[in-house]
Amino acid sequence: MAPIKLYGSPVSTATTRVLVTLYEKEVEFEFVPIDMRAGEHKKDSFLAINPFGQVPAFEDGDLKLFESRAITKYVAHQYADKGTQLKCGDMKTTAMILVWMEAEAHQFDPAASKLAWELAIKPLFGMVTDNAAVEEHEAKLVKVLDVYESRLSQSKYLACDCVTLADLHHLPNIQYLLGTQAKKLFDCRPHVCKWVADITARPSWLKVVEMQKKK
Amino acid sequence: MAPIKLYGSPVSTATTRVLVTLYEKEVEFEFVPIDMRAGEHKKDSFLAINPFGQVPAFEDGDLKLFESRAITKYVAHQYADKGTQLKCGDMKTTAMILVWMEAEAHQFDPAASKLAWELAIKPLFGMVTDNAAVEEHEAKLVKVLDVYESRLSQSKYLACDCVTLADLHHLPNIQYLLGTQAKKLFDCRPHVCKWVADITARPSWLKVVEMQKKK
Repeated sequence: MAPIKLYGSPVSTATTRVLVTLYEKEVEFEFVPIDMRAGEHKKDSFLAINPFGQVPAFEDGDLKLFESRAITKYVAHQYADKGTQLKCGDMKTTAMILVWMEAEAHQFDPAASKLAWELAIKPLFGMVTDNAAVEEHEAKLVKVLDVYESRLSQSKYLACDCVTLADLHHLPNIQYLLGTQAKKLFDCRPHVCKWVADITARPSWLKVVEMQKKK
Repeated sequence: MAPIKLYGSPVSTATTRVLVTLYEKEVEFEFVPIDMRAGEHKKDSFLAINPFGQVPAFEDGDLKLFESRAITKYVAHQYADKGTQLKCGDMKTTAMILVWMEAEAHQFDPAASKLAWELAIKPLFGMVTDNAAVEEHEAKLVKVLDVYESRLSQSKYLACDCVTLADLHHLPNIQYLLGTQAKKLFDCRPHVCKWVADITARPSWLKVVEMQKKK
């Protein structure tokens, strides 16, 4: 039995953020599906690992972790010598990885996750899309992607010239948005478009997409 | 002239998050006030450091950084041997610091920053508080603080028994909320209340509060 267990759902962006990292690092793990429709993430056994009652939760031996971006950072650090290195260079590059990870969390994600909710997830559950919210968050995402276009014209990936967690963290929301009208926001920015094509074609991410199809 | 420059405003929670970290690490720096009412953060000279046009922005020699939580992590890492250590123990503790930093960013901050906006900042600018928003975000903060109360009954600080960035990152929003009706949410939880009293009394934070008073 693998010492690492990831509890979550392949439809959850926070879960797939961790999955792609585990695949990149070639770390063996057991995936434990959590049935959120049945409320499994609110049961005591799950709350013992993640007290906030959200997927994913993660165990490595007796270490219990939650919050997707904390888990990915732990995996990248603890298994530094396995799989893709996910970092390059000196302290300056490390600082750039920190900056662009926070840009994902506090600039990209707030707009992208709300758009994914309105345009991709609500329709899946037969809920009605709020067009005013779509308009509001598309306008926000446009401003963020303008900054990304400028950055990616100077650097192959967000932090440096190699792929890092700062790039991988974007994949779950990007994947949802590529199947919606918001795809045009990526397509019309050449450097963003090239970056999206690059990271969504990584074998690690294709494995995650396969898991989503089986769901 | 100090090689480190912090551009921002003492009324900005993102700026004070960095200020308290610089004081804890006893790192010399020059504080460059940005007049947000005059739109200085949207001018080209500022956008050259932070392309998102938000305070704070940070320079260490030729390194230009933005996003408050990226800057604090850089400072803690780069100046590890100065001031308060802000970490303790092994990889397990490092993982706990990662987890509770993300809990601040994705659980505490979304509720606390919206409450601070409604209850503390809007009144400052003569704007009308949205009571429905207050109710919604107080309910969210209650759930978060229940988890914190449980955690802080087992651990002196959030990540371990010494203060870390995971604690310090909470200070800016806590300070605003202590001057509002939301203070009761901290006061009625004994371990949270003790933790709040402890971290708000740190000399590093008292220096920040002094800067705010002079503003």
